[in-house]
Amino acid sequence: MGAYILPTKKTKLKVFSLGGHGEVGKNMTVLEYGNDIIVLDCGVAFPQDEMLGIDLVIPDFTYLQENKEKIRGLFLTHAHEDHIGSVPYFLREVKARLFATKLTLGLVGNKLREHGLLNQTEMTVVPQGDTVIAGCFKVEFLRVNHSIADACAFAITTPVGVVIHSGDFKVDFTPIQGEIIDLQRFGELGRKGVKLLLCESTNVLYPGYTLSERTVGDMFRRVFEESPSQRLIVAMFSSHIDRIQQVLNSAVQHRRKVLFMGRSMLNAVKTATELGYLNAPTGLIIETNELRNYTPNQLVIITTGSQGEPMAALSRMAASDHRQVTITPSDKVIISASPIPGNEKLVSRVINDLMEQGAEVIYEGLMDVHVSGHAKQEELKMIHALVKPKYFMPIHGEFRHLTHHKDLAISMGMPKENIFIADIGEVLEISSTDAKMNGTVPSGQLLVDGLGVGDVGNVVLRDRKHLSEDGLIIAAAGISMADGYCQVISGPEIISRGFVFVRESDQLIEGAKAKVADTLFELEQKNTADRQYIRNRVREDLREYIWQSTKRNPMIFPILVEV
Amino acid sequence: MGAYILPTKKTKLKVFSLGGHGEVGKNMTVLEYGNDIIVLDCGVAFPQDEMLGIDLVIPDFTYLQENKEKIRGLFLTHAHEDHIGSVPYFLREVKARLFATKLTLGLVGNKLREHGLLNQTEMTVVPQGDTVIAGCFKVEFLRVNHSIADACAFAITTPVGVVIHSGDFKVDFTPIQGEIIDLQRFGELGRKGVKLLLCESTNVLYPGYTLSERTVGDMFRRVFEESPSQRLIVAMFSSHIDRIQQVLNSAVQHRRKVLFMGRSMLNAVKTATELGYLNAPTGLIIETNELRNYTPNQLVIITTGSQGEPMAALSRMAASDHRQVTITPSDKVIISASPIPGNEKLVSRVINDLMEQGAEVIYEGLMDVHVSGHAKQEELKMIHALVKPKYFMPIHGEFRHLTHHKDLAISMGMPKENIFIADIGEVLEISSTDAKMNGTVPSGQLLVDGLGVGDVGNVVLRDRKHLSEDGLIIAAAGISMADGYCQVISGPEIISRGFVFVRESDQLIEGAKAKVADTLFELEQKNTADRQYIRNRVREDLREYIWQSTKRNPMIFPILVEV
Repeated sequence: MGAYILPTKKTKLKVFSLGGHGEVGKNMTVLEYGNDIIVLDCGVAFPQDEMLGIDLVIPDFTYLQENKEKIRGLFLTHAHEDHIGSVPYFLREVKARLFATKLTLGLVGNKLREHGLLNQTEMTVVPQGDTVIAGCFKVEFLRVNHSIADACAFAITTPVGVVIHSGDFKVDFTPIQGEIIDLQRFGELGRKGVKLLLCESTNVLYPGYTLSERTVGDMFRRVFEESPSQRLIVAMFSSHIDRIQQVLNSAVQHRRKVLFMGRSMLNAVKTATELGYLNAPTGLIIETNELRNYTPNQLVIITTGSQGEPMAALSRMAASDHRQVTITPSDKVIISASPIPGNEKLVSRVINDLMEQGAEVIYEGLMDVHVSGHAKQEELKMIHALVKPKYFMPIHGEFRHLTHHKDLAISMGMPKENIFIADIGEVLEISSTDAKMNGTVPSGQLLVDGLGVGDVGNVVLRDRKHLSEDGLIIAAAGISMADGYCQVISGPEIISRGFVFVRESDQLIEGAKAKVADTLFELEQKNTADRQYIRNRVREDLREYIWQSTKRNPMIFPILVEV
Repeated sequence: MGAYILPTKKTKLKVFSLGGHGEVGKNMTVLEYGNDIIVLDCGVAFPQDEMLGIDLVIPDFTYLQENKEKIRGLFLTHAHEDHIGSVPYFLREVKARLFATKLTLGLVGNKLREHGLLNQTEMTVVPQGDTVIAGCFKVEFLRVNHSIADACAFAITTPVGVVIHSGDFKVDFTPIQGEIIDLQRFGELGRKGVKLLLCESTNVLYPGYTLSERTVGDMFRRVFEESPSQRLIVAMFSSHIDRIQQVLNSAVQHRRKVLFMGRSMLNAVKTATELGYLNAPTGLIIETNELRNYTPNQLVIITTGSQGEPMAALSRMAASDHRQVTITPSDKVIISASPIPGNEKLVSRVINDLMEQGAEVIYEGLMDVHVSGHAKQEELKMIHALVKPKYFMPIHGEFRHLTHHKDLAISMGMPKENIFIADIGEVLEISSTDAKMNGTVPSGQLLVDGLGVGDVGNVVLRDRKHLSEDGLIIAAAGISMADGYCQVISGPEIISRGFVFVRESDQLIEGAKAKVADTLFELEQKNTADRQYIRNRVREDLREYIWQSTKRNPMIFPILVEV
């Protein structure tokens, strides 16, 4: 594996993804040329509904494990979970040096510390605009705007030409921190010639431009002005440092104190403050135990829970289950986020609960409480027009997003045959003269459940689903095979869980016991000796009885203890 | 219970809900005066995410069972599941005569036939505009527009004044079938004086007017014109008879044949056609076995599955799992519906799958493929302005919808104290002079799972959730208590399901077996005789071992078979 191969003129650049093409979340792109590999991002996905009990979904790193001596670095565009969340799992398998901007490394560092990997990991801070040499690759960090500070795209000079990877971006002409996305440099690179553009597709379904983050600040200003007597509670993503700064600015102006709530919020604020991305005058921030010293109109609480996560601070406040904060009619809650697809009902529940406690709740649709961090159609077109790549691969989106992004590029004059929609693991090969899809590398997703990585597969998930729908029944009996065939010595006993409310089910359970006893008696009479056959008969007869009685299909465990 | 009480001047009208106030779905409103009760609608709700394995959620009918001799009729506004879905469950408990329009009773009849209740149920067809006398109540059926034909509101004359119940409605000035909502009669009733308005709140968050159903027909016409060579597949709710008619109209015009797919679609079309609500020229509709006789551009398929339901025809086509229909690049699929909250991800998956098969997919956001059947803010205001009720109770929505509807009424000049937001079971009492919330009746929700109604409660659901997250482990051993204390005779054996992939877990399972053996050995040495203590020790020791090894918490069953 990975023997040293001298690059020749025929060597091709391989570009493939181990996560994130054709799927939301867990972005990970690999560039390989001869003996050099660079990895761009290493994100995590959240489990789909059918992945019962699963905590996280991470990419299958097999290909990179097998080629680890080729890896010249892991480059991170920004510090969102879907771009950095798998870094600890990756570093456990493969030693790689990390390259990213200051805030990104700061937040990744928190994660590595939790996993006990911080000390053994080499990390290099790369300012926006700088270039890193990694094997045959030169990786230039291009400044972009996004819903987290210090985000980058990459312009990678390779032996076959320049590859631009957009990361996640928007075009914000009035950003809160830092400068406008480096459109000039995108244009300059495009003018010189870009071989391949990998561009994100999150908002490709939406026409027009994404509004500037500053418009959310205008909303905050209005809410602060219109709420002279209420306590304000703002829920948002903890990584949205620029937005936190805007709330702090309004708080200073209106002489309110700020309390942060939620573990990830406290971590992010601490890191961003230490690194200079968040500026709060001394005395602005208070601790929980100081809450009682202030009246509602002297306070702003900034909290996690904008996605309705049941364990987050906001949900617990809404459910009257928070130790420090009780919601009252003098609260105004601003949910400054859009529900991520799948979270709509959780968010609705939190809104309803807050309103039932008497709070006023401002959320998407009622006011401009949120702007996206992702480019809409006109911004995507701007990047295509500046970069004018030879080849284009839409990334970061569901299949429909990638298809619409392809159509967008075609509408701008790009030849259809120069656009590649690749599934995870499918390799795009680029030479100095052409590009084509050619073969695959091992890829897939690994499910993380507790400490286990990849030890829960489809069979386990199928069983969990079965158990979740109808529960289980255990039919246990003691048997003897002393005379060469089955003789029942004790039992049967019936135990059920998740099946039916026990008080209601006495008759049913008695019937099940009688059914199992009948089956065992019949098999005894027939001098049956085949243990597997006995188990199967017990299972099938009991299943049939339960189905006829209830139209339910619990998982059935015949336990025959032989003595 | 329910002894005959002579109404006096002091008798008050009681209005309460057994489903649907403060909750989406399962609408059921009760009016009671003296010895007379009428029931308005009897709907079903679909289970929340945490209701694992549950099929349906129905109202608790206890109060009506206890007062069944007072019930003068069950009146249905229209034939959507959230208004009629619990009718069979209700009729099993309480004999009641049904009153509804022709299409509504036709569709309810299908449901009753499936439950074997059709022959024993008295049903009276009431045309829009007619009035039914039911005890002391006069129930007038008011014509409204909605996303199903033959929908009604009710104007109920009671001893204390007129109560209007809006049902579900919109204002469609150009309906496909029937006439415009009877605004004149709403106005006339309002002019004479309406005591109480119960009005639906589904779309109260949206400003403006809901578009006419006819605009969807315009979209169909455009799609048919722009797709001369493609096969068209239209997914929608089977109950949306008017929309089906519009597709049929376009099909006739473009000389295409129509195939219906999906069981509920076939049932609804059959009933609507028999009753004259759907008109198809002879030869327009074909059967599945005739598919092969036509080229793609000669066909339209109208199918269920617009909500991404995994078992519906469209989802199976998308997953290449449909026996009769294979999706190809010559297909254009129109999803003519909005995802109901909670179904967004299912719908996205179907769209992605269809696109991966090469189909073109038109869905919400890309074209005007759907209009709502519910009144938006300006239509709600229209009804408030026409009816000008003394009292108002917003119904049919989450708490936030009811609250916004209250605010809307206040903005139109209604005194805050005349508006009542009632939770399920809370009683509004109205006399000729005043109205106030006073007491509650028994209420709640019953979970339906297979044949069982109400036999799955919180304990069962909690167990199902536990099982779904980490699976289970059975530790079985044969013991003897012959000498007065526990002696292990066989085992222990370990069985796990939904816990961890077995091939990966040999060592873990061997460790578990050893742990249980250790525990049992220790208890043997101590001459332990308490069976419950032995079981608990096995469970706790094994749980601790598994948690330390995996950070998972499967449900553990110690099975000690005594011989």
